[in-house]
Amino acid sequence: MGEAKRNSSSSSSNSDEDIQAQVAKAVEDVKELQDSAASFISRTSTDEQALRQRSQSLDSSIRRLRSQLYSLLSSKALDPKLAEKAKDLQRATCVLADGDAASFLPGKAQGGRFLRMFLGPITVRSSSKDIQLKVKEEYNAYRDRTALLFLLFPATLLILRSWLWDGCLPTFPVQAYQAWLLFLYTGLALRENILRVNGSDIRPWWIYHHYCAMFMALVSLTWEIKGQPDCSQKQRGVQLFLQWAMMQGVAMLLQNRYQRQRLYTRIALGKAKRMDVVWGETAGVDGQLWLLCPILFILQGFEAYVGLQLLKTALVGVASEWQVSFCGVVLVFMAVGNFVNTVQTLMVKSRFKAKMKRSKSKQDL
Amino acid sequence: MGEAKRNSSSSSSNSDEDIQAQVAKAVEDVKELQDSAASFISRTSTDEQALRQRSQSLDSSIRRLRSQLYSLLSSKALDPKLAEKAKDLQRATCVLADGDAASFLPGKAQGGRFLRMFLGPITVRSSSKDIQLKVKEEYNAYRDRTALLFLLFPATLLILRSWLWDGCLPTFPVQAYQAWLLFLYTGLALRENILRVNGSDIRPWWIYHHYCAMFMALVSLTWEIKGQPDCSQKQRGVQLFLQWAMMQGVAMLLQNRYQRQRLYTRIALGKAKRMDVVWGETAGVDGQLWLLCPILFILQGFEAYVGLQLLKTALVGVASEWQVSFCGVVLVFMAVGNFVNTVQTLMVKSRFKAKMKRSKSKQDL
Repeated sequence: MGEAKRNSSSSSSNSDEDIQAQVAKAVEDVKELQDSAASFISRTSTDEQALRQRSQSLDSSIRRLRSQLYSLLSSKALDPKLAEKAKDLQRATCVLADGDAASFLPGKAQGGRFLRMFLGPITVRSSSKDIQLKVKEEYNAYRDRTALLFLLFPATLLILRSWLWDGCLPTFPVQAYQAWLLFLYTGLALRENILRVNGSDIRPWWIYHHYCAMFMALVSLTWEIKGQPDCSQKQRGVQLFLQWAMMQGVAMLLQNRYQRQRLYTRIALGKAKRMDVVWGETAGVDGQLWLLCPILFILQGFEAYVGLQLLKTALVGVASEWQVSFCGVVLVFMAVGNFVNTVQTLMVKSRFKAKMKRSKSKQDL
Repeated sequence: MGEAKRNSSSSSSNSDEDIQAQVAKAVEDVKELQDSAASFISRTSTDEQALRQRSQSLDSSIRRLRSQLYSLLSSKALDPKLAEKAKDLQRATCVLADGDAASFLPGKAQGGRFLRMFLGPITVRSSSKDIQLKVKEEYNAYRDRTALLFLLFPATLLILRSWLWDGCLPTFPVQAYQAWLLFLYTGLALRENILRVNGSDIRPWWIYHHYCAMFMALVSLTWEIKGQPDCSQKQRGVQLFLQWAMMQGVAMLLQNRYQRQRLYTRIALGKAKRMDVVWGETAGVDGQLWLLCPILFILQGFEAYVGLQLLKTALVGVASEWQVSFCGVVLVFMAVGNFVNTVQTLMVKSRFKAKMKRSKSKQDL
């Protein structure tokens, strides 16, 4: 028995030695790996720094050339050679902005306060073009899903209100809707900030617009919607708001379809970068837009109308809570902002068209 | 005059040619830059892939060795050589997890549903150790600021209530506090998910805990707090909640100080990775914790008490809104979860200590 014990002990000490050797090997491997990782990281960061400098200086010289070219083009008759060069430069800009070098251009806003507030100082800029495009695609898909819900959620509430609830909205579904709006707008604002950091040229107004909407959703959650004693009067604001939301759902669906098509066309023509978001009600500016425009203006008018109605309700004293006036003011502000942005884009577009026509007629002469 | 015109035209065509040459140069430069960026990216991703594979296989073999070593160490008298190897292995693990190779280990949860929901499919994992540590530091600083506000905000409300507001809390400040809580918990949950992705081993319970708190803050926003007709009865729940929040503020301040010290000690001893978060009420488990523990248990008891009081208020019918019962249930759930987590950690710790003692006394024999 003593023999057996010695044997087992010696075999176990064998396996001990085996494990000790394996541990020594692993420790050695970790050292080696650490060294090669360190050298990889330092080498990569040196190379990256160099590429970053080259991209930046090239980007700024292209900007300078472009402004020179455009002032030449607008100051005199169109020289076909210069126009050719302008096209070359435009193509080069797209390659720089959308190709592999794009990862080395500085993001437009490094994070920004909104992202820092929610996420801390993490970098959300991806240097892999694949991930950037995935983010962009997912943002579009998210907006599509959202637009559908944006239409269905308030529509269901309004339909149930007249069929089932005898003209009186119950509190819970409306508050669930408002909570969903808060979550939705927070998500949109975060995603748009991330897209901006990743090189998309989304218009700042649409992000501010979503900050306003976030605030409004938050405030509306604290707003008392109990109907008693007089539903139709007390809930007039909520009802108008839901109708406006429905209209916005329809407009969003139309826009999403239209702008995605536009974006693909523009990418195919080499005019747009793939990370651009043709977001909002003003960014796409061609042909079909003249069909969308009336809808947008009606929507903006209705937005302002709902805001004013809320203010009126608050002033008359039917619902004297501060939330009502606040939402009214924010809605009017958003309507005005949307209107100004739409008009601005249309003006830029028509000025551009007029210039094109002028230089073309000069050339014909 | 014809001469002068010809001159100016020739000088302008000179500058035209100049610009054309510059454009051609820029187009050429963009091509070159694009090529070197593409080759840099493909080279880097190949190298990165190789490093990732090496790190992963080494990580898994270290895991295997460690479990073998621990089972050997616990099954028989402590062999000093084996113990030495165990220390070596521990050190190697720290180097692997905290050194430059760490960037190539897979994150624990690649994003996770919560992050995807808010941010889309962007990668929030940073391969730069500097940024990871900055994120960690900022998270700690955020928690410090938060703990202070966590103490001051409800304290101010309660003091003003008895001094200025005659025992009746007005709606707006309380709702502002609840909105702040919602924002705070969303920010914490997002940051903790980001830390997890970046390799911190924060306990999942603390993240779930913040999801619950987020929901509760959202629901409490819709909760009617108007005091009339009977303030002291109707606002009993709110008042208890504020008192509990104050206590939690004190506990958070104590914990933050204690756990930061602990973390630094553990990093110095090579026991912890720098990305670890010694978060929550249970993670730090040594000496001082036996001082913290009574406070934690009292806090958890009070949390459950507040929850039960809310449920009672809801059942008796003083405030029969569903929000009151919901918050009650969530508070009791969180209290139980916190308690279970604290006890689990203490048990793990005492088992570990007992084992250490046993193997030490064996060695002494």
